[in-house]
Amino acid sequence: MEFTSKIIEQAVDAFAKLPGVGKKTSLRYVLSVIKGDEQQAKALSDIILKLKTDLRFCKKCFNICESEFCEICLNPSRNETIICVVQDYRDVLAIENTGLYKGHYHVLGGLINPIEGIGPSQLNIESLVNKISTNNVSEVILALNTTMEGETTSFFVFRKLAPYSVKLTAIARGIAVGDEIEYTDEVTLGRSIANRVPFDSLLKK
Amino acid sequence: MEFTSKIIEQAVDAFAKLPGVGKKTSLRYVLSVIKGDEQQAKALSDIILKLKTDLRFCKKCFNICESEFCEICLNPSRNETIICVVQDYRDVLAIENTGLYKGHYHVLGGLINPIEGIGPSQLNIESLVNKISTNNVSEVILALNTTMEGETTSFFVFRKLAPYSVKLTAIARGIAVGDEIEYTDEVTLGRSIANRVPFDSLLKK
Repeated sequence: MEFTSKIIEQAVDAFAKLPGVGKKTSLRYVLSVIKGDEQQAKALSDIILKLKTDLRFCKKCFNICESEFCEICLNPSRNETIICVVQDYRDVLAIENTGLYKGHYHVLGGLINPIEGIGPSQLNIESLVNKISTNNVSEVILALNTTMEGETTSFFVFRKLAPYSVKLTAIARGIAVGDEIEYTDEVTLGRSIANRVPFDSLLKK
Repeated sequence: MEFTSKIIEQAVDAFAKLPGVGKKTSLRYVLSVIKGDEQQAKALSDIILKLKTDLRFCKKCFNICESEFCEICLNPSRNETIICVVQDYRDVLAIENTGLYKGHYHVLGGLINPIEGIGPSQLNIESLVNKISTNNVSEVILALNTTMEGETTSFFVFRKLAPYSVKLTAIARGIAVGDEIEYTDEVTLGRSIANRVPFDSLLKK
């Protein structure tokens, strides 16, 4: 695509660096900024800078926060002997929104993905091992995606932590609430039968 | 969705104002900025401001440009007696990229769309009528989408310009190059038969 203005070209290139945004979508964003409200454009511009200057990663769990430690790590009412291992901030949000977890987190910052060149050393795995070896942690819950990359990472973390006397669990795999058995894939259905639970455990929330 | 940080919440709201971006996509963009290169975030922030400060609409054709008039209107080698009416800047780009049009443009800035509350008075239609009535224009080509909104707008513009002694044409509707007749919808196929062209016109480009 050839643009009639250098500024538009630069803007399209800049927006196209966002994940999943191609040149067409990027041009759509650029035109909406040009046509849109000046205040709104300034707000977007300012907040992008703020994301880089005012946010950092929690020194303890690598969650995103505004000070040295995140709110979850600083909250004395949360149980710090349980650590839930997640891929990134979005998974922290998703689990927090269930309202059913009161422990701490450890954010890996990604998953092992040899195709994209992401190995274990680029993830926050060493710091997790240190945390387990030096602190009083009773349980580590692996809450990673059940994709190839997620399962690989889970297995890697599991092997790293196995030598320590800590209970290692994984979030339950099974049929999603609201789903029909007929349309559930056989691997999931097989797991949900093998790992069946006492019926009355479904009655509590 | 509840966020653990005010800054993330504001950033998600700001990105979600872009067209077609919901909260989930917006959060994805925000996280990519947080994890990404500082230089890159600054470039995006700067260029957004520049879009509002350094760009304006051409006084003659309402195309987007960096000075008072756009490059196309200023180019003396282009034929200003032919005006191609388009919806927005993207259509100017698309037609320019064919390399087959050497006239001027007139950008309406949208299409008539009662559902979204866009009426003829919000589009650059009056200025088009003025241009036709005062300048020496021989032909107006209507190059709007062949959607409901596009056809409505075409018909409205056609009626506005009909009183003037100017040739009014529309871009050809027909089977797309590379398409199969079997799978072409009947309205398009019917039009392409009714408006058939001399075969040797296909031999020139």
